[in-house]
Amino acid sequence: MQQVHEYIQRNEAAFIAELCDYVRFPSVSAQSVHAGDLRRCAEWLVGGCARMGLEATLRETPGNPVVVARTPKSKSRGAKRKRFLVYGHYDVQPPEPLDLWKSPPFEPRIQGRNLYGRGASDNKGQNLAHLKAVEAYLKTGTELPCDITFVLEGEEEVGSSSLAGFLKAHRKELACDAVVISDTGIPSLKHPALTYGLRGIAAMEVRVHGPSRDLHSGIYGGSLDNPAWVLSRMLGRLRTDAGRVAIPGFYDRVRPLTRFERTQLARLPFSETAYRKFLGVPALNGEKGFTPIEQRCARPTLEINGLTSGYQGQGSKTIVPAWAVAKITMRLVPDQSPKEILSLAAGYLRKICPPTVRLEVELGHSGEPYVVSPSSPVALAGLSALRQAFGREPYLIREGGSIPIVNDFRKILGVDTLLLGLALPDDNLHSPNEKFNLDCFMNGVRMSAALWQELARI
Amino acid sequence: MQQVHEYIQRNEAAFIAELCDYVRFPSVSAQSVHAGDLRRCAEWLVGGCARMGLEATLRETPGNPVVVARTPKSKSRGAKRKRFLVYGHYDVQPPEPLDLWKSPPFEPRIQGRNLYGRGASDNKGQNLAHLKAVEAYLKTGTELPCDITFVLEGEEEVGSSSLAGFLKAHRKELACDAVVISDTGIPSLKHPALTYGLRGIAAMEVRVHGPSRDLHSGIYGGSLDNPAWVLSRMLGRLRTDAGRVAIPGFYDRVRPLTRFERTQLARLPFSETAYRKFLGVPALNGEKGFTPIEQRCARPTLEINGLTSGYQGQGSKTIVPAWAVAKITMRLVPDQSPKEILSLAAGYLRKICPPTVRLEVELGHSGEPYVVSPSSPVALAGLSALRQAFGREPYLIREGGSIPIVNDFRKILGVDTLLLGLALPDDNLHSPNEKFNLDCFMNGVRMSAALWQELARI
Repeated sequence: MQQVHEYIQRNEAAFIAELCDYVRFPSVSAQSVHAGDLRRCAEWLVGGCARMGLEATLRETPGNPVVVARTPKSKSRGAKRKRFLVYGHYDVQPPEPLDLWKSPPFEPRIQGRNLYGRGASDNKGQNLAHLKAVEAYLKTGTELPCDITFVLEGEEEVGSSSLAGFLKAHRKELACDAVVISDTGIPSLKHPALTYGLRGIAAMEVRVHGPSRDLHSGIYGGSLDNPAWVLSRMLGRLRTDAGRVAIPGFYDRVRPLTRFERTQLARLPFSETAYRKFLGVPALNGEKGFTPIEQRCARPTLEINGLTSGYQGQGSKTIVPAWAVAKITMRLVPDQSPKEILSLAAGYLRKICPPTVRLEVELGHSGEPYVVSPSSPVALAGLSALRQAFGREPYLIREGGSIPIVNDFRKILGVDTLLLGLALPDDNLHSPNEKFNLDCFMNGVRMSAALWQELARI
Repeated sequence: MQQVHEYIQRNEAAFIAELCDYVRFPSVSAQSVHAGDLRRCAEWLVGGCARMGLEATLRETPGNPVVVARTPKSKSRGAKRKRFLVYGHYDVQPPEPLDLWKSPPFEPRIQGRNLYGRGASDNKGQNLAHLKAVEAYLKTGTELPCDITFVLEGEEEVGSSSLAGFLKAHRKELACDAVVISDTGIPSLKHPALTYGLRGIAAMEVRVHGPSRDLHSGIYGGSLDNPAWVLSRMLGRLRTDAGRVAIPGFYDRVRPLTRFERTQLARLPFSETAYRKFLGVPALNGEKGFTPIEQRCARPTLEINGLTSGYQGQGSKTIVPAWAVAKITMRLVPDQSPKEILSLAAGYLRKICPPTVRLEVELGHSGEPYVVSPSSPVALAGLSALRQAFGREPYLIREGGSIPIVNDFRKILGVDTLLLGLALPDDNLHSPNEKFNLDCFMNGVRMSAALWQELARI
């Protein structure tokens, strides 16, 4: 392992240069004009993987290609070797609004220990860290203690629509003992963390239809219900002032947080004042009886993501609008079922909707919540690798966001996922001026190098 | 008067042709590109008034010019003659959306007894009816029993911002016994009506500011109040399910409807089923204890005119929006004061707003409610003129809309206004395919001819 560590140490500049090349591809999956850039990026990955000694192929899908790269067959005999799958994605979020970027999004810029560019953190830098760790083994002739398959897709930012089919079609080839993903965050460089839970999601759009067209509020106002008001009234009844979702049955399947989990989450650094200032709100408010960290990562929530009705221009337009719409998403925790929650929410809305309007509830996308044991052998292996790479005792965290593919891996390949994120809270994911911290990057390479030793022993 | 009647009868085609010329001016006051068209329209009016024997002048204002036209000095001596002011406006609403017009908005088209074109009903046809009645007197050498001054402005559709100043500056010249305006509606050709009351208006914009930017709802959702939800909750508390405005003190100054008024309003033709179908709503709902007609013209109401927050595009965007805005207008009745009501509403909103967000209430434009006695000598004169022109017993109505200038006439000139509207409910005012009924037009000319006889006797 000494050689592996030295290789990593020696090649930092080369790794960073390679990350810059990777970031230069404008692989924006949401914009069809970039289809060629996505393919070129995938081909570049295949070439890079082959050069480092992996068996790499580009696989066609109905959407953007998937890159599959495997470590070469081991020469050592004996017990059956373990096999792990590293998942990542080479597609990125759209860079818009461009005018808010301090430097062009696809021209990587290094300032101090940060590398700025769209996709630097989400997810190019994080998956490249794993590739470079494996390169260190291969280039130094160090025996890898397990087999590793990389699956790098190009549609994560647009819903991974080809991935489940790809996993199903290659179930045998991709069979493994666990999946490893670095696509989550850590509180700070001093707080490496293993993410053992994610919230699920359930989306819906609620439309209240009133009169057949916008009406003059002077001539008709007062004799009919205003759909914007009816919608507001209904939305107001979806939550209580104490921060609880008011849909009957919403909490029925929520698995209580264990004492161990609450203790772990309480270890995380947190200043309510600093957090409040960071958000820019006069005061916090969440579900009573839970800490803000628990509220945002381990308790379910209902959020209005958008409201639209009537006139939105300057000044006023005196109308009773014809309709009003709210976009809503709920973040769910184990063992809530998105389907059941959507059905409860739609039923409740129908119940509280007055007969003076027509209600339309459109159910949107959903993703199951996810949680694994934070003390399983796989989790302990991850914690040990983090400890070695960051030189600090790692934290156990849950994240409030949703990564629907982890449920695909569980359902299709029958394995759990180890979430070893490397993003910092200020990495500006999905925002202008995305960056990746180069210490996170190099610690990530070291963490991955240590991980294969740990995982091989489980 | 026989000659006046005959002149009107004989010149119908000429009157209609002149109305077509009037409608051809795209005098859209909201669009600065039409400033020249407004001036040309005003100049055309001055020329037309001069040709019919009026002393007409174009008067400059900080905005569009005002046309003032006076009947010539009478040769008859004796008692002091009464003097009346006819108000109208030559500017029109924007014609957009153009694709919904069946024929170009500024190319008048006659179909049956309807003349289609922007401004045909609002207000060119209605003020031209009065001009043509006076022309009938002047061209037949029939002695007018009173002095008449026409004031035709070009900024009514954009708030009449120059009118109050103009009235103040020419208070002496414009002194009169009453103002006559035809800019309201009648239920049908069989239901001529005098409008003796108008609702006032008070506008406000309510902004709820949450976090300093849109936040990822997965990462932060649950630990802070969502401004779209807070706004919805507050809006839901502005009204009761029984259709009452819930702002404390809102009804304190509302003058109760008299038994006479309720009887008059109950005489109007009304089918709840037909009205509901016309609006396109599953069921009506207004303030309990009042008929739909009373609710829409003689009771106050609070309407949300627009809602804006967060993401409004296709699909979903999982954010806690930074802010949410509602545009609100209230329609008021005597003796509610817009200023006081705005202050009550803002105070109530501040009271029910939680400390987790920042509330901003921007007070907008307002107009006093208006009501005159329906049995004053002026009102009786108007009723008599309507009876003669339409051959039917006229109705006494209140309108739910607001005409702020009537309060300017009361405050600045110290006189009441006689509202003798000629628009039908299906005239599509402010909408595509505006039209004016030619029977309303010709009855309007006859009504105006009779009116001067009646008013001279008060």
